[in-house]
Amino acid sequence: MANKKMTIIASKGTLDMAYPPLLLATTAAAMDIDVTIFFTFYGLQIIRKDNAEKLKVSPLGNPAMPMPMPMPMPAAAGLPALDELATSMMKEMFKKHSVATVGELLALAQESGVKFVACQMTMDVMGIKQEDIISGVEFGGAATWMDVAADSQVNLLV
Amino acid sequence: MANKKMTIIASKGTLDMAYPPLLLATTAAAMDIDVTIFFTFYGLQIIRKDNAEKLKVSPLGNPAMPMPMPMPMPAAAGLPALDELATSMMKEMFKKHSVATVGELLALAQESGVKFVACQMTMDVMGIKQEDIISGVEFGGAATWMDVAADSQVNLLV
Amino acid sequence: MANKKMTIIASKGTLDMAYPPLLLATTAAAMDIDVTIFFTFYGLQIIRKDNAEKLKVSPLGNPAMPMPMPMPMPAAAGLPALDELATSMMKEMFKKHSVATVGELLALAQESGVKFVACQMTMDVMGIKQEDIISGVEFGGAATWMDVAADSQVNLLV
Repeated sequence: MANKKMTIIASKGTLDMAYPPLLLATTAAAMDIDVTIFFTFYGLQIIRKDNAEKLKVSPLGNPAMPMPMPMPMPAAAGLPALDELATSMMKEMFKKHSVATVGELLALAQESGVKFVACQMTMDVMGIKQEDIISGVEFGGAATWMDVAADSQVNLLV
Repeated sequence: MANKKMTIIASKGTLDMAYPPLLLATTAAAMDIDVTIFFTFYGLQIIRKDNAEKLKVSPLGNPAMPMPMPMPMPAAAGLPALDELATSMMKEMFKKHSVATVGELLALAQESGVKFVACQMTMDVMGIKQEDIISGVEFGGAATWMDVAADSQVNLLV
Repeated sequence: MANKKMTIIASKGTLDMAYPPLLLATTAAAMDIDVTIFFTFYGLQIIRKDNAEKLKVSPLGNPAMPMPMPMPMPAAAGLPALDELATSMMKEMFKKHSVATVGELLALAQESGVKFVACQMTMDVMGIKQEDIISGVEFGGAATWMDVAADSQVNLLV
């Protein structure tokens, strides 16, 4: 019997939201499910060369973030300082609990046969070239995703 | 054989997140897939009359946005000024690469037979009246979406 | 004939984004659909004991929020004050239109047979213990979700 199939559209490029597509994909691949991740919009940041370990997370706009922020924040420090702090804390939390980094999960996903497709249209708009993307990635458009999705049992957009 | 079906729940109303539902829907429609978009929560802003071209995007909380922001931001300018700047830059990027505007994609989707449903409950909560919504939209609730989704091959929430 | 099935991954923990999983789940349950919600990442905040009515929403980063914010915001008040204000206004809007609270929807979902699964890995990372979670919740991982999702007609990630 043919394997079950899953597609995930990865449209976010923050440190926190890079995890769900990669964790779900690697888990599914280990269960012999054929997985395709379609990286588009901000999600392209995940597969830019040398960028996986540089993704950041921001506490702004997300009061559900379970990290103690120094508030009221020092106005002088500014917003980028808040993002740096939240990013360091989140990476520390993952490391402490032996959760793989985004770069490690990317490698594991590719080793496990997860297919990566990068959205050419978004790349053009954002000025990202094919040589800026990690190796092993195919390039396509929404129709490429749609073809696979229509025959998949599970489709998600992150 | 009956056409394949897709539903998309459009729950976000920012300029960037208005694109995925409309790009995927118009692509699918061109492939003879029956598409229904269910606009709810902030997604209603996409189909408010005369609002499609006024959607904004914010760099706050999204360190993955690939746009250079003047940082440290001038405190005097305030947050709305940042949103205006990011919105102008994103619109310019899309225009430069001949990507259709949100309003153009809405029209294309409707011409292509994509069905639009607006969430009546959210409209009531937000004080949006049926005459505030663009023409050609049906009104319904979560059960309306569920009925279609249960018989669709692809369902996404944006 | 077996019931149709739906899974929802609840990955956000803000007041606004706590609603879609619970509204869709309770609607589906009323239509005899078997629903499983997998709470992970920030979504765990929804099912932390005594936390459902304390979720907050932020206007930061979401220019689509249809709530008048005092702008330019008083710098002295700071960002947490903005979140408090937006949260109060949203709760008031829901209450005025007789929309159930998050706590009420959680109870209704459980009474309706919606199955709740909490992501053990994220709990470990965030330092959340099983006794910190409301009763009636099972604990599992991505594979637990995948098993159900592969046999479901509808799968969403919020």
